Amino acid sequence: MTTLTDTELHDLAQQLRVDSVRAAAAAGSGHPTSSMSAADLLAVLLARHFRYDFTRPAHPGNDRFVLSKGHASPLLYAAYKAAGAIDDTELLTFRTLGSRLEGHPTPRRLPWVETATGSLGQGLPVGVGIALAGKRLDRIGYRVHVLCGDSELAEGSVWEAAEHAGFEHLDNLTVTVDVNRLGQRGPTRHGHDLDAYARRFQAFGWHTIEIDGHDIAAIDLAYAEARDTVGQPTAILARTLKGKGVAAVEDREGLHGKPLPEPDEAVSELGGDRGLRVEVAAPPAARSLHAVRSGHLDLPRYETGEEVATRDAYGQALTALGTARGDVVALDGEVGDSTRSEYFAKEHPERYFECYIAEQQLVATGVGMAARGWLPYASTFAAFLTRAHDFIRMAAISGAGINLVGSHAGVAIGQDGPSQMGLEDLAMFRSVHDSTVLYPCDANQTARLIATMAELTGVRYLRTSRGKTPVIYPPHEEFPVGGSKVLRSGRDDRLTIVAAGVTVHEALRAADELADAGIPVRVIDLYSVKPVDRHTLREAARATGCLVTVEDHYSEGGLGDAVAEAFDDGAPVPRLVRLAVDPMPGSATPQEQLRAAGIDAASIAAGVALLVEQAVTP
Amino acid sequence: MTTLTDTELHDLAQQLRVDSVRAAAAAGSGHPTSSMSAADLLAVLLARHFRYDFTRPAHPGNDRFVLSKGHASPLLYAAYKAAGAIDDTELLTFRTLGSRLEGHPTPRRLPWVETATGSLGQGLPVGVGIALAGKRLDRIGYRVHVLCGDSELAEGSVWEAAEHAGFEHLDNLTVTVDVNRLGQRGPTRHGHDLDAYARRFQAFGWHTIEIDGHDIAAIDLAYAEARDTVGQPTAILARTLKGKGVAAVEDREGLHGKPLPEPDEAVSELGGDRGLRVEVAAPPAARSLHAVRSGHLDLPRYETGEEVATRDAYGQALTALGTARGDVVALDGEVGDSTRSEYFAKEHPERYFECYIAEQQLVATGVGMAARGWLPYASTFAAFLTRAHDFIRMAAISGAGINLVGSHAGVAIGQDGPSQMGLEDLAMFRSVHDSTVLYPCDANQTARLIATMAELTGVRYLRTSRGKTPVIYPPHEEFPVGGSKVLRSGRDDRLTIVAAGVTVHEALRAADELADAGIPVRVIDLYSVKPVDRHTLREAARATGCLVTVEDHYSEGGLGDAVAEAFDDGAPVPRLVRLAVDPMPGSATPQEQLRAAGIDAASIAAGVALLVEQAVTP
Repeated sequence: MTTLTDTELHDLAQQLRVDSVRAAAAAGSGHPTSSMSAADLLAVLLARHFRYDFTRPAHPGNDRFVLSKGHASPLLYAAYKAAGAIDDTELLTFRTLGSRLEGHPTPRRLPWVETATGSLGQGLPVGVGIALAGKRLDRIGYRVHVLCGDSELAEGSVWEAAEHAGFEHLDNLTVTVDVNRLGQRGPTRHGHDLDAYARRFQAFGWHTIEIDGHDIAAIDLAYAEARDTVGQPTAILARTLKGKGVAAVEDREGLHGKPLPEPDEAVSELGGDRGLRVEVAAPPAARSLHAVRSGHLDLPRYETGEEVATRDAYGQALTALGTARGDVVALDGEVGDSTRSEYFAKEHPERYFECYIAEQQLVATGVGMAARGWLPYASTFAAFLTRAHDFIRMAAISGAGINLVGSHAGVAIGQDGPSQMGLEDLAMFRSVHDSTVLYPCDANQTARLIATMAELTGVRYLRTSRGKTPVIYPPHEEFPVGGSKVLRSGRDDRLTIVAAGVTVHEALRAADELADAGIPVRVIDLYSVKPVDRHTLREAARATGCLVTVEDHYSEGGLGDAVAEAFDDGAPVPRLVRLAVDPMPGSATPQEQLRAAGIDAASIAAGVALLVEQAVTP
Repeated sequence: MTTLTDTELHDLAQQLRVDSVRAAAAAGSGHPTSSMSAADLLAVLLARHFRYDFTRPAHPGNDRFVLSKGHASPLLYAAYKAAGAIDDTELLTFRTLGSRLEGHPTPRRLPWVETATGSLGQGLPVGVGIALAGKRLDRIGYRVHVLCGDSELAEGSVWEAAEHAGFEHLDNLTVTVDVNRLGQRGPTRHGHDLDAYARRFQAFGWHTIEIDGHDIAAIDLAYAEARDTVGQPTAILARTLKGKGVAAVEDREGLHGKPLPEPDEAVSELGGDRGLRVEVAAPPAARSLHAVRSGHLDLPRYETGEEVATRDAYGQALTALGTARGDVVALDGEVGDSTRSEYFAKEHPERYFECYIAEQQLVATGVGMAARGWLPYASTFAAFLTRAHDFIRMAAISGAGINLVGSHAGVAIGQDGPSQMGLEDLAMFRSVHDSTVLYPCDANQTARLIATMAELTGVRYLRTSRGKTPVIYPPHEEFPVGGSKVLRSGRDDRLTIVAAGVTVHEALRAADELADAGIPVRVIDLYSVKPVDRHTLREAARATGCLVTVEDHYSEGGLGDAVAEAFDDGAPVPRLVRLAVDPMPGSATPQEQLRAAGIDAASIAAGVALLVEQAVTP
């Protein structure tokens, strides 16, 4: 391998600019000026410091690079071209239908991308997750590089990540901030005041280096210093100019996200196309660590009739899963005593990650670890997962395989009141692309579903409850994703109650009361909210003509919507009735809450009796 | 008014502890130990520094207090009792059904509460919004006090707020951090290391004061110093002990969120009930400023047939609304050039607030300003509002009247790809309690709806589009919330296409093609996604038997679900078919995107033709 001189590195950077300009010009859109500011930084990193085998992106020894400012994708793709990973023809497919080179990079399409970016302030949090995997799980010496813009440092998630990285002493992590002083609509808060950013990172325990981001030698020294820094992550704060190298656009406002007005002239001004190739250093030999442990999954078993909270079953099942599989990791947002992830922490402390009250970082850590091949289960209160909605949305764009578990769902938590109640979590997770949404009602069902989640792809969500509920399924019952359980059924069923989680038990009580009163009804436990069991719901619709959904969730986006969705292809639709939470709850006991929301057994029975009566009397 | 001595203040603090213990004991739940750590802080603030008329919570001169650690509600309610705002009988209704004294305080129930808390890390962001209103809108000298826990400083939103407050020089804002070193499940990251927190706040431009949070004189001096600090917000970092004053619980782990084991003994140890009353200083005379401006709303008008992006209409209509009404304020997350809020900024710069790329703070600023009687419109890309989901959820619990506008909705944005596409925003906003969700398809409709939003309560959301669409409604058309428009209709309609936003135009083209081919169909513009127009949808169902929804959104939680909801009370349901976005989009032109998602005119026409054929041939 030949080492490039500083002059050659300057040429390489100019080529990255040229290719950024060309790609955006060909596409007629994109962010060339945001690419040009960071070209020198990436050129030096790639040629002198990064260790990566582009033919083996899964190589465990590879360094990892996250382009947090995902809109600078032309620069990334230009670098891929310089490294020989893509050719010029592909480069010029940028942003066209079917191209791997999307407006913002995603690992769905490109094997060298660690995580989807484009929602700002997410690259560093995910980079922290990868670096944490490197330090505490893989225990391989790879380095994690994140390239951020300066505008995105306004996102709180960046400081959540900074806190996490500083506290965990992630000296395998380097963030380079391309301080080009211009956001989308104008100047950033701090302009070229590198000290302002340095003070912030230092306060969170980082080592900082301030440089001219167009000075090849300074950049090189900074990366060397970062590599040699022990016990602290490093932030390289690089003063740059947006549109650097082309006078018509350099350091000017109003040019964000636009191709250059005169691309051919710009290419000339940048010295033309050089056709340079860069030899990226190979990673050292390394192997992944997450060996299978016992290999045998010994899930907890609960006796039917026993009263067990599904959150307890979650903690116990996850612990068992962690014993069986060495790749399972657990994360929590400082409520492990409530979610019961603490059971896992006690048994497998080396694979447990306390993320404190920082739900964005909680999910981002999971995404980063999943990118490194680990199988994360991240838990907090269902309500607080809304804090990480944008991260979950982006995880879906990445195609990240993460398990999220939300406890304390619904009004059934009781006195704590609405701020602590997950009442919109099903809606949020149903709308996540390619997601799976599960909501068990008993401990055995929870345990089986927790194990099943490990086999799925994409974002999967499981909702647990705070209070105890009776175990109604035997330990060996199967609960396929996309299935449901018919718990009460007869030839003369007048309608069908569809419930999940805590409302299953209310529905069963209501059905038994109604049966005693001569009104037989069917009861379905719809534990798989997404995908939904179309077959069973349609069969119930045919047989009973009316589906009444009962859910401990607001009426939009949850069980009622999921059931309606089962008929969204023009199939005959039964009558649909939904019982859900309204109005806004306050404080009360769990049973009072269910009553006030009209989703307890008595309310269900009364509602059903009324419906049946209406059906009889025209 | 008599000034309490330091000894009397100590007694007052002990009384607050006593009442916290008593309230939690009566409730059988709650967070007394988290209340006891901050009792001295609140006692001194209330008796010596706070200016507030409890009989007139709307008094414009009142100081404002936000309990960010909302779980310490017993302390807040104990303080209300000491101030004479509630009596002891009400105090002991804590956490019971129907009580105003919820587990976490909300302004829905208590007039002295500025904003609902209980999801941590939100009090300071909202406090920043109130303080900003005080400085730049009300221009009244009230001070804003936020009491935070130490655990919640792990939330990035706190540092978004810190950045915002420092940059805006909010010297009317004081945050007191009750550093009791214990979170829910154990020690915080930084324990009693006050310097760690001080470094962080200082880095963001704050003045900091470190004190013993149980030293009455030190607390008093700190509040005086905060009041006298100019040009900077102040953070008082107070070293405290959780459960202070009762040996059995003081500074001990494992006691979070639990009543004291021996409340009577604890009350004795704290010196018993003293029956103290505190005279809170009256606010100075003050009056609100937001006078009506022109009073006359001169909305923009667009010619039918003209091509105008609804985001442009948003910017123009909001500007006109701001001219008519002096209480309208606009906020944006550094994309005002894209959302078009920049139009408002140019016309009304004094009422425009740049929140930079910090969507949590964007929404929190809106919530804070709404609490002070202003009418905020906050905009960013629809996709990025997911970043603020937890804040929006809490805004609904507050009952805050805020307008949120998400631009760049759906695949129709084109090349930028999925990270920038709002494809789950309708699902998110539909599930917000008491929300209104609007999605206009043309410029006149947008303008009218923007004006209508000002008259609504709760969280209201409007979705705009990036690309231009033809104006199809005349300027004076009315668009009531909960309504819809039937755009094509005839006696022989074979089915009904329900569309909104960009898909209205695709649906109209499809309907015209289909009519030419002898297949007349009805077309409904469902601009009011929530509440939904049950009447018109049911009428269409009766008349045509089949509703086909077409939406630029994922299939869950959006238009398809909203239409199904219109039949959720057991009414006869037509056949339902939904066309929505799937699979995950990449980059492509807007028209290619609509085609790939199967929601363009050709796909609609083909799908409808197939449905009609199926209906004919059994």
